[in-house]
Order: sequence, then structure tokens, then C-alpha cells
Amino acid sequence: MDWDTLIHNGTVVTVNPDFDIIENGFVAVKNGRIVDIGALTPDAGRSAAGECVDAGGGIVFPGFVNTHTHLPMTLFRGLADDLPLMTWLQEHIFPAEERYITPGTVGPATLLACAEMILSGTTTCCDGYFHEDAVAEAVDAAGIRAVLGQGVIDYPAPGVGDPSKNVDHALAYTEKWRDRSPLIMPSIFCHSPYTCSPGTLRRAKKAAGDLIFQIHAAETRPECRRIQEEHGRSPIAYLDHLGVLDERTLVVHAVWADMEDISILNRRRAAASHCPLSNMKLAGGIAQAVEMLRAGIPVGLGTDGCASGNTLDMFRTMDMAAKLHKVAASDPTVMDARTILEMATIRGAEALGLSDRIGSLEKGKSADIVVLDTGSPHLQPMHRPESHLVYSAGGADVRDVMAAGRWVLRDRRLKTLHWPAIRDAVDGIAASISTNG
Amino acid sequence: MDWDTLIHNGTVVTVNPDFDIIENGFVAVKNGRIVDIGALTPDAGRSAAGECVDAGGGIVFPGFVNTHTHLPMTLFRGLADDLPLMTWLQEHIFPAEERYITPGTVGPATLLACAEMILSGTTTCCDGYFHEDAVAEAVDAAGIRAVLGQGVIDYPAPGVGDPSKNVDHALAYTEKWRDRSPLIMPSIFCHSPYTCSPGTLRRAKKAAGDLIFQIHAAETRPECRRIQEEHGRSPIAYLDHLGVLDERTLVVHAVWADMEDISILNRRRAAASHCPLSNMKLAGGIAQAVEMLRAGIPVGLGTDGCASGNTLDMFRTMDMAAKLHKVAASDPTVMDARTILEMATIRGAEALGLSDRIGSLEKGKSADIVVLDTGSPHLQPMHRPESHLVYSAGGADVRDVMAAGRWVLRDRRLKTLHWPAIRDAVDGIAASISTNG
Repeated sequence: MDWDTLIHNGTVVTVNPDFDIIENGFVAVKNGRIVDIGALTPDAGRSAAGECVDAGGGIVFPGFVNTHTHLPMTLFRGLADDLPLMTWLQEHIFPAEERYITPGTVGPATLLACAEMILSGTTTCCDGYFHEDAVAEAVDAAGIRAVLGQGVIDYPAPGVGDPSKNVDHALAYTEKWRDRSPLIMPSIFCHSPYTCSPGTLRRAKKAAGDLIFQIHAAETRPECRRIQEEHGRSPIAYLDHLGVLDERTLVVHAVWADMEDISILNRRRAAASHCPLSNMKLAGGIAQAVEMLRAGIPVGLGTDGCASGNTLDMFRTMDMAAKLHKVAASDPTVMDARTILEMATIRGAEALGLSDRIGSLEKGKSADIVVLDTGSPHLQPMHRPESHLVYSAGGADVRDVMAAGRWVLRDRRLKTLHWPAIRDAVDGIAASISTNG
Repeated sequence: MDWDTLIHNGTVVTVNPDFDIIENGFVAVKNGRIVDIGALTPDAGRSAAGECVDAGGGIVFPGFVNTHTHLPMTLFRGLADDLPLMTWLQEHIFPAEERYITPGTVGPATLLACAEMILSGTTTCCDGYFHEDAVAEAVDAAGIRAVLGQGVIDYPAPGVGDPSKNVDHALAYTEKWRDRSPLIMPSIFCHSPYTCSPGTLRRAKKAAGDLIFQIHAAETRPECRRIQEEHGRSPIAYLDHLGVLDERTLVVHAVWADMEDISILNRRRAAASHCPLSNMKLAGGIAQAVEMLRAGIPVGLGTDGCASGNTLDMFRTMDMAAKLHKVAASDPTVMDARTILEMATIRGAEALGLSDRIGSLEKGKSADIVVLDTGSPHLQPMHRPESHLVYSAGGADVRDVMAAGRWVLRDRRLKTLHWPAIRDAVDGIAASISTNG
């Protein structure tokens, strides 16, 4: 066995198709890929000259795939909570965005988001926001993988004064970032069916081409009523009618997708991002995630942005998703720990069209690996590691994170980011937000 | 100002009746009590010879009051999840209890629970289990405050072979622990209206006298149906009919309490423990906690035991409670951060009859104080500290904990417990559980 890095002495939760869990297992990495995985034979650790990392009896699992973020919104974490959706959006978030979202603030805000994601075990995210060029620079510097969508909306948005230029602007961004970094996959993010005209939606989807096309849809009941009134269809059926649903489309939220909508999504092989934290906090509703999974739709989990969800920690989203669906279905067997963990990794990877590369620990896949320290009282004893990951662990238990074969966290120290500098930059911006509202 | 310990340079979230939040505030402690609290004047820190603790710009808030635990069930954390309630209980939990719950295992298991609670900011809990004498020894050693109820059930239970002796056994326990420790308040815990006969319930309540009487009630729909069939009333109305509801009664779960039940609880001045994590995971239902609070019932939050809830971290319960009720009510304004934080502290204290002593940071109250480190990326920036406590922080952010004026955690080091010894003891028990099922 020839490797650069050997992670050993851990319980390996592979999230492979058999959901194999390997006690006292190892993962061997070479040139950024997983070259071997198994139960450690006594001599295996001594057969190569690479780096040996002792997982200390912890859990080794694939890095999380967060399928929906607005990374720079870390700036607005906790700025406005517990408000009606429209008050929150129109009186707090939109004005704050207009004032504080610039290429100069988006960089530090995104680095802050990357620090938080790395420290809680996320190695891939799918983002949609404005000034996405600055987002991409920051994520690339952080060394994690991301699908990054430039926002398109028929209002004057940060960075694009004239809405009619939005799609051109997004196209120019995707052209710039196509093949620029092995980690960054450009994308186009249309805000929603109610903030983009049919023409904008069609043009944006065409501009996205073979890249991921993201869109919020069927998030709230008022949205569904409005689309029904204006276009005579549900939001999902309307998007299908426009021809923007296919296997490169990620529908975010889909809270009010009914069985007919689910069948449309399935027929078009579109994917869904399920964001229970945000849907619960804004009281949008409960997506039929169980039914979507049953239908075979790739459903990933997402945290949403910190303005609504307040955290990018996928552990919180896993726990919330598991419990929400059990109580909603009056059935404790739905959304079991395995299903939830799959949604947070391999299903999310499928939703982003990346499951050939990431989402599980398997030979040939990219080395996107997390080592979780299970030594704290709240993770003792450990009868079933997948239960601990979903129901007991938190971001702070993450010890090491490797993204695409490179350590981005070791012993809870960030390896690609300089936290004090990020904090100083964010402090300066935040002080002005706090002062001016 | 004369003090033993001065905690300064923090944002003090008092949870007093005005919910005052003091920026750059201090809390002064003498002889286990809070003697002063306010915004720090430049010279105040130098006026006494006591210990000065710099909160480092973090959040200082009252220790959590966890109103429902089964502490020794840490042993079964993650042993069986995602199962129908009766399968879980009868095929996994009851057999495990029969086999592994002994005075010898309850001690280490409770110390493990105390370590977890302290590390996540809980300074008071209300427990109900068997071998409660051993639980009390452990909690007293840990140095935190607790209402500890000896279990009563009309089945052969761990430590009490003959069910007819249960109440006598519980009474002997309460007599032993009455006035034995300033931190331990003995109590009697009747398992439920469907596992205790009317006679047992009446005798147990009488035996409890002026101590807290705890009971699970209205937790599931099958329970409600059964009590209705057998006694012609809802579980709450039935308990009222038996005369066991008064201001010293804590009704746990009350998931299916309807408006009439709520009015009974209110009339009897009984309290409720709301355990959303457990109710969601076991798919029991959603308690009308908003209505109970509106009616004026003291409603505290509880984690439940680790066999159902998998964690004793009150941060997780706060976050879950806030979001669950918003989505259930289709109203993002219900269960705002302030209300949730009050439930986790002062309302919980009221539910246990302890609000004159604990539950808020106010002059004259016991020094049960938590210092939260807000320096990590996931807590930056900080616009509103109460939002961070509920929506973004986790147990791992707790830096220091003082219980009754004594440090039980400093810089994340346990001061009253020796973790390696606890871990070794728990490891031994757990190995045998994992092997034998």
C-alpha cells in the first residue's frame, strides 16, 4: 500500500452504498484521492513513508455537503430573528444588504463562513449570492470545494445596478470561473420564481448550460398562492413549464411541493435542497422530504444563510431534520440516522452532480475526510457511531478536516485561513452594522 | 463593593424581569451569592482582594435549569434510535435497565451526566430514576444543584423488587436526603398514570409532602386513549381527580394537554416540563407550550434522558424548542429568543419552586453563573447576545461554570470531577452493554 497520508485507529463511517462501518479502520490517501480503506492490519501503518494520523478512536467520515448557503450573510447572524418573514426581509435584511454588501465586505464575510464550515466538518457547499466573484476568491483561498452561484434577480441587486444586466453579469462570472480552480464550480442562482420574470428564468437557465442552476422555490404559502394566481400553476409546475427543470437544476426549499410537484421533479431528474432550520425558524412549513427521498429525488441538506439559519453547522441541521420529520409524520422510524447522514453527504453530492467524486469514503474518491473526537462526555459511551453523528455530536467535536487531499483543519487549527485577520476585518464591518442598524 | 469573585468584561444577560442585557458588565459574588451586578466602572475591579475573572468579552448568563432528566441513562445514549416507542422501550430500554442499572453503575453513569451538564452550562437539574440515592451521592459530589426523585412504578423496578414497597422506599430516600446537602432536594417521581395505580399515585403524592412530585403525563396519544378508557378522563384531569396536582407537582411532557387540561394545570398552579427533543425523536407529538406559557403556567425546558434525547445539552433543546413552535404555529414570532432563554432558566426555576434562589442573575440570588466564549467563528459577529445563546451557541462554547458560588468548570476544565476516572468506569460498563445488547 502506497500513500501520502494514512488516517488510522478510527471508526470509519464510509457512507458507501452498504453503509459499511469499519471498527478500528483506516483510510489511505494519495495525490488527493482515497487509495485504500479497511480494517487496519498490524503492519499496514509501517509500509510507507507518508504521514500517519491517529484518529484516537474517534469517528472518520466523509466531509459534509451543505447544499444551500448564502455565505456572506454571516455578517447578519442574529441581526433580526423572530420576525414575520416580510418584516424580516424588507425591513432588516434587504436594507442591510443594500448598505453593507460590497466586494470589500463579501470577502471577509465569506472567509468567516469558511472558517465556520471547516470547523464543523463541511468540505463542500453550494452557495448563491451576489458579488459571487469575491465569494469564489475567498472559498478558493480557504481550500474547500464549492458550487458558487452568482445571483440573478429582477431588482437592483448588490453589485449589479441594472437588473436587465443580471444574466449577462452571471454569465461573465461563470465564464471567468470555469476551469479556474479545481475546487470551484461556478453556477447561476436565480432568486425565485416570484422575483425573476419568465424571460429572466429562461435566459438564466440557458446561460447556466451544463452548470448547476439553483433556485428557491415553493418556500412559503404566499409564494405558492402568488405563482398560482399569476401563472396558473404551482411554483414547481411553473418552472417545469418554463423548461428550467432538469438534472442540473437544484430546487431549494420545495417546502410546499406536493405529490404532483414531486413527480415533476422526479421526471425531470431535478434535485432538492432541504433546509429545515431555516424553514422552521421563518415558519415557512415542513417540506415533504421523506416523500421526495422515497420518489428517488436526490435530496441534500442545507443550512441556508446565517441571516435566517444563524449557523452553518451541518450537525445542527442533521439533528433538526431527523426530529422534525419524525414528529411531523408521527413515526419515529422515518429519517433514521443513516438516511440523515446520507442526505448530509452522498445525497447532497448527488444533488450537486458530484457523487462520482465526493460524498462517501470509497476508493478512488476525493479525500474529503473528517475526523471527529469522541472523547468528550457527551459522546460517551458510543454504541452506534452513526447515532452519535446525528443526535449527539456538534461542530466543536470535529478535530481534523481534509478537503481534496489537503488538511484544512488539524487539531482544531485552521490550516488555510488566518482567523485573527478574518476576525479583525469582520469586527470592523460588524461594528458599523450594529451602530447603524 | 466587597466580593470573593468578580466576573467582568462580559455581556451580562441577566434574565431578570426586565431581561436587562448589560454590555461590558460585571457580576460580583460573595459567600456563594450575587452581591452586585452592573456596568463596570473603571476602578471597581481594584476595590477588593478577591478573584477577578475576565469574561473576555463573552456572554455571562444564569446557569441552565434542566427540568427533566434520567441521569444514569447516559449509559444507553445511542443504543437504540429510530424505533417505534414500544419496541424501543420494551425490547431495548427495559431489558437494558434490568441488566445494567445497579447502584454500582448508576454512580459512574450519573457522574458522566454531571460532566456533560457542567460542560454545557447546566447548574440545576430535576431528575427522576431508580437507585436515586446513588444518583444523589454523585450529583452532590459534582457540586451542582438538583431536585432528585426516586422512581415509583407498579412493576418490579431496578433496586426495588417488590412494587408494593416502592412508595416506602421512596419515602425513606427523601427522609435520608432532606437537609443532607444544601444542593440536593429530594423528590418523588411517579413514572406515569398508566404505570402507577390510583392508590400508588395518591400515596406517593402524600409521601412527597412539601417536596417536588414529578410525573410523566399525556406524553403519547395511546396513553391518553388508555387513561380515557380506564378512568373516563384525560391524563391531566385524572391526576387532578386523584388530587395529586398542586404547586409542588411537575407534570412532564404534557404533549397532549388540551386547553381544558391547561386550565386545570393553571388552576392547581402545577408546573410543566417541556421536552421537545424527546417528544420529536419518539414522535410523541408537539406540546402546546405556547398556550401553557400564555396561561401563566411555569414551563421549563428539559432534555429528558439520553436514551431518548441523546444529549443533556440545553442549547440543543433551546434551539429545537424555538424552531419547533414557530413552524408548528406557522408564526415566526412565537417562542422568541427571550422566551426560550427564560424557559431554560427562570421559568425552569419557577417550575421547581426555586425561583427565589436561582434562574437569573440578580442581587441576592445564588451564584449559578455561566461564562460563554464568543470568540469562535460561529459566534461572530454578535449583534444580539440572546440570539446567539438560542440559535448559534452550543455546549462546547461554555468556558466557565459556577454553581452555588463554587467553580465547577474553569477554562473548560472540570473542577469537581475527575473525567479520566469517570470515563474508565463508564467504558467498562459500556463494553458489557455493547457486547450483550
